[in-house]
Amino acid sequence: MTLNLLDVSLRDGSHSVRHTFTVEQVREAAKGLNAAGVRYFEVSHGDGLGGSSLQYGLSATDELKLIEAAVAECTTSEVSVLLIPGIGTKHDLEQAAKLGAKMVRVATHVTEADVAAQHIQLSRELGLKTAGFLMMSHMAPPEKIVEQAKLFESYGAEIVYVTDSAGAMLPKDVTERISALRQNVQCEIGFHAHNNLSMAMANTIAAVEAGATYIDGSMRALGAGAGNTQIEVMVAVLEKLGYETGIDLYKLTDTANVVIAPLMQQPQEITGSSLILGYSGVYSSFLLHAQKAAKQFGVDERDLLMKVGEMKTVGGQEDLIYEVAQNLMR
Amino acid sequence: MTLNLLDVSLRDGSHSVRHTFTVEQVREAAKGLNAAGVRYFEVSHGDGLGGSSLQYGLSATDELKLIEAAVAECTTSEVSVLLIPGIGTKHDLEQAAKLGAKMVRVATHVTEADVAAQHIQLSRELGLKTAGFLMMSHMAPPEKIVEQAKLFESYGAEIVYVTDSAGAMLPKDVTERISALRQNVQCEIGFHAHNNLSMAMANTIAAVEAGATYIDGSMRALGAGAGNTQIEVMVAVLEKLGYETGIDLYKLTDTANVVIAPLMQQPQEITGSSLILGYSGVYSSFLLHAQKAAKQFGVDERDLLMKVGEMKTVGGQEDLIYEVAQNLMR
Repeated sequence: MTLNLLDVSLRDGSHSVRHTFTVEQVREAAKGLNAAGVRYFEVSHGDGLGGSSLQYGLSATDELKLIEAAVAECTTSEVSVLLIPGIGTKHDLEQAAKLGAKMVRVATHVTEADVAAQHIQLSRELGLKTAGFLMMSHMAPPEKIVEQAKLFESYGAEIVYVTDSAGAMLPKDVTERISALRQNVQCEIGFHAHNNLSMAMANTIAAVEAGATYIDGSMRALGAGAGNTQIEVMVAVLEKLGYETGIDLYKLTDTANVVIAPLMQQPQEITGSSLILGYSGVYSSFLLHAQKAAKQFGVDERDLLMKVGEMKTVGGQEDLIYEVAQNLMR
Repeated sequence: MTLNLLDVSLRDGSHSVRHTFTVEQVREAAKGLNAAGVRYFEVSHGDGLGGSSLQYGLSATDELKLIEAAVAECTTSEVSVLLIPGIGTKHDLEQAAKLGAKMVRVATHVTEADVAAQHIQLSRELGLKTAGFLMMSHMAPPEKIVEQAKLFESYGAEIVYVTDSAGAMLPKDVTERISALRQNVQCEIGFHAHNNLSMAMANTIAAVEAGATYIDGSMRALGAGAGNTQIEVMVAVLEKLGYETGIDLYKLTDTANVVIAPLMQQPQEITGSSLILGYSGVYSSFLLHAQKAAKQFGVDERDLLMKVGEMKTVGGQEDLIYEVAQNLMR
């Protein structure tokens, strides 16, 4: 059985480069991913289609231009887009499909799959490969994940992803959730990791061993917070474990080294703050906000993140970070 | 049960900074480690006492001065040194003990514990906590590891370490080796990881779960190749799993951020070459040599490392790298 690896460098990585991807960078990365045999790769603003905004960060280049450039390089790879209902719209999705995107992952908070019904239905009508993407999956127990996955499935999703947005899971958390899905849903199962606790690779292996067949990674781990599972390393590890990926390891590392490494604004290290993100279970894309707010109000960003974690905040509540920082200052 | 964490930033990290540690840097790091409650930390040239040489890299500052500075900051922590027989001598060990080192890890290739007999005996006579350190443990099966550990034990070692020098192990490799030791030797068991396959943390957890009680890590993962298990992250993960470390997470991350991050010459990323080190199972300290040789002879450093891996080279055979590069060029 060949696993379906999906590279998110050009989408989750958008957070890490503060949404500055250029057409030329995307073209070179897409060329490399296609040549290496990566089945799918995702291109969108870090927060999905329509994410370019003051709230989520303005894109330097219109994401539709980036999608168009990526599609033009594909002979065997296919381009995916991320859509978070409430940030992106059905119109955004139609435009992406018109430009040649072949897959969409419709993302919601782990308990809010029901907001995705129309987007998933539209995606199927547009003929796209369609996935539901349960963000912050560490915040819900396996039964809840199954319930939400069944909703996605009922709308027409062909794949449901367990998404460890905060990098807060340990392998047993992954195994429990993926196994519960395997036993209770018909659709394929995917997994998306973040490396805040240095467990992205171990969690990815746990997911594959529990039955996930769609796996995310990014070159040089480029992604929000501490980054994602490093895809070129994943290929080597999966191969060592006897799984087939259909990917050329040398070509993929060349692309990581020649295209991605030079555009990185900082290494994907686990810093004090990204560690606390994973430890406290806070949404990865909150990191830059927390750093900014900590500086603005002169508080310890770790205390800030721990507080935000206790409040069980979800994506979309970024404004709260500044309020919490202000309160901590007092 | 409290685990004994040993920080190797000031020893394995010496490779990463090309042996340029200063007295001031060591003093600040030692102060932080002691304040955070880290039980042991190691100070030596990357290749152990006496490693300063053209072959292994000249130390900018005499390691004995660094050991002395570290010891002066300790109120509860204790300083360990590494000794590789053939590189360091019994005289080096006596000097380190005189300066206040309280622990030594005598390191040999995984099949050569017998060269350590005199050094381990001397260490016990000097009143040091004494460990045997089986480098490149991925190259020997569990039975061989048990045989070699029994040799160490017969010389007087109180701890035997399984050392994944090349970062080539996966969790099941670790579990097999540590479990075999647990069942067959009386002494305590340690584990030392490298992150070349992004599995250092997962392997560390596997080791602890199989019965290891001495665990290595380094701040910001500072170490040879792709670096070690990131110790501040390890503290968070172990705590999440219910283990006690006795370490203050905030103080340790402060030291990592304020002392270690600024002195790093490059981030501890998994680059194309360090990935191939883990994939091919080549000794981590070969990396800088391989990069130099690849440049000198105009060959692909990955091909070079894969070839060196096939030859099952061991520490001390660094010269071979240049020969192999020359042959590849032809």
